Amino acid sequence: MAPVTNARLLFNEIPSGLPEPGKTTIYDTSETIDLENVPLRGGALIKTLVLSVDPYLRGRMRDPSIESYAPAFIKGKPLDNFGVGVVLRSEDPAIKPGDHLYGYFPFQEYFLSKDAAIRMTLPNEKLPWSVYVGVCGMPGQTAYYGWKEHAKPNPGDVVFISTGAGVVGATVIQLAKAEGLKVIASAGSDEKVAFMKELGADVVFNYKTEKTSDVLAREGPINIYWDNVGGETLEAAIAAATDNARFIECGYITSYNGEDYHVKNLSQIFAKQLTLSGFLVDRLKHKYQDAFYSEVPARVARGEIKYNEDITRGLEKAGDAILDVQTGKNKGKSVVLVAEE
Amino acid sequence: MAPVTNARLLFNEIPSGLPEPGKTTIYDTSETIDLENVPLRGGALIKTLVLSVDPYLRGRMRDPSIESYAPAFIKGKPLDNFGVGVVLRSEDPAIKPGDHLYGYFPFQEYFLSKDAAIRMTLPNEKLPWSVYVGVCGMPGQTAYYGWKEHAKPNPGDVVFISTGAGVVGATVIQLAKAEGLKVIASAGSDEKVAFMKELGADVVFNYKTEKTSDVLAREGPINIYWDNVGGETLEAAIAAATDNARFIECGYITSYNGEDYHVKNLSQIFAKQLTLSGFLVDRLKHKYQDAFYSEVPARVARGEIKYNEDITRGLEKAGDAILDVQTGKNKGKSVVLVAEE
Repeated sequence: MAPVTNARLLFNEIPSGLPEPGKTTIYDTSETIDLENVPLRGGALIKTLVLSVDPYLRGRMRDPSIESYAPAFIKGKPLDNFGVGVVLRSEDPAIKPGDHLYGYFPFQEYFLSKDAAIRMTLPNEKLPWSVYVGVCGMPGQTAYYGWKEHAKPNPGDVVFISTGAGVVGATVIQLAKAEGLKVIASAGSDEKVAFMKELGADVVFNYKTEKTSDVLAREGPINIYWDNVGGETLEAAIAAATDNARFIECGYITSYNGEDYHVKNLSQIFAKQLTLSGFLVDRLKHKYQDAFYSEVPARVARGEIKYNEDITRGLEKAGDAILDVQTGKNKGKSVVLVAEE
Repeated sequence: MAPVTNARLLFNEIPSGLPEPGKTTIYDTSETIDLENVPLRGGALIKTLVLSVDPYLRGRMRDPSIESYAPAFIKGKPLDNFGVGVVLRSEDPAIKPGDHLYGYFPFQEYFLSKDAAIRMTLPNEKLPWSVYVGVCGMPGQTAYYGWKEHAKPNPGDVVFISTGAGVVGATVIQLAKAEGLKVIASAGSDEKVAFMKELGADVVFNYKTEKTSDVLAREGPINIYWDNVGGETLEAAIAAATDNARFIECGYITSYNGEDYHVKNLSQIFAKQLTLSGFLVDRLKHKYQDAFYSEVPARVARGEIKYNEDITRGLEKAGDAILDVQTGKNKGKSVVLVAEE
């Protein structure tokens, strides 16, 4: 077979605000690959099927000299993130052709990996592979691990969840409802609001048309806040918190693109004896990963945990998908479908 | 005996910035009291000996319609705070003349109390009574309870303490050093800095002449931050924190007088997986009070825990003492000595 195009999405320049397709990232088709004959050198050849697009990718588009919890993207190299792929050929005894792998993938159609086996081999629960980067992947784990570790729910508690239509938020809504709590959830479009209602949230609102502080004043006070956004929403949640409320600090999307709202009531942290727990999913893996994989994919397959995906077809559109996630345009978990099997 | 003057310090008006003596508070000598003949109506007559002056009093000088963790002062009435007094006469069988009481006292030389016994009867450890509003009172308890509950120290940890020369901070320095940790402590004058050195802090600095962020960059990273001030210092501590650092949010003095610094790195709370624990001393009382009183006054009496007092003599100077605490002029725990026995 003749060599085929091996398209990539390259990191091109550090954005000052939102990541622009064609500028921040560039879709490149200059490389080809001979799938049958490319030497494996003891590794494996993998075909990328799905790639995850997540808010935190914005933080990786920075000067590499700035340290942060996730490594900076390198200019001229493909972006990378969680993905699922299928093994085409392998010289690595730990994996075989046809295996489906989950882990970090480059934004690239095909790639050779010497350490393919460090990725996780996925079971097939008759679920589409895309769920393994969503509700059954890192974002689902984020919700599950963070809730188990930090929420400390009591009967009768009221929970507020921002970005409740994202896969993390949507999963948290369902975990909180499964414990019988009152759930208030916000998102940025009426469609997302309708989805949160479907998931069972008691009070749902569009933060672009209703003020978070007004809703929380009416429906609170809140005992638990799942914070994906920070900024003004965090300020409203602090104002509406009961004494001893738990804040699960999972993201701070309002600051990812250079804005930074001045939160003016931080002194309430001591006055109300709040606990703010920042966490990263990776660091809680050892504690909850086994429980997660034995419980969540099966519950998703049985329809007990619902999810919503926003599928972008083709790697050439991945730059747009990345931008949409930063502006909140995506409807459900953003996934790039790079190829069918 | 003829009636004597019964001086009071009255709350006069809500300040917009710093509390001004003669304006925010007024020293009033218009009342008299007949100590021998005033009817007790089943209660007791108490002579105020010492009154505590604390940063949090500023928060009580507010519109009473604004809720907060401590009740608002009432215009035209005396301020009140922790104090120690001696019982002159009593019809209450629970207390007798000569007993020393600790609890909430009005800023007033003498007062009648129907429920004098809800105050705590103090033992006499041969310590001056003033220590019972300082290192052996609420501020000492704040340090002790907060440290026991939230510090979770590990061997080798580095601790940063702001306002380390205040009685809370000074006690925390000594608790941290007793556990063998490296202690960095800041205060606002060279005299205070020298005092923190005496207490055993490893790195001491005057935040007015050296930038907190510079010192922490050099001497950190920090695993524990005891926060009494918030604002820019909190921002510097977040920047210098290790992953999983614990922040004990005990006060936010930078915002008490209407300023509010824009803390710009709150997104690091999740990125570094920090835990910020707000707490109020009262709510941890049930858990640690007995241990505190059985341990701390004896250790203070033996000289194992050092303290520093700034004694203001006479209730007429209490307004100045309150202002000095807000601007950081006091040298050690501020106490008003209302009367000798």
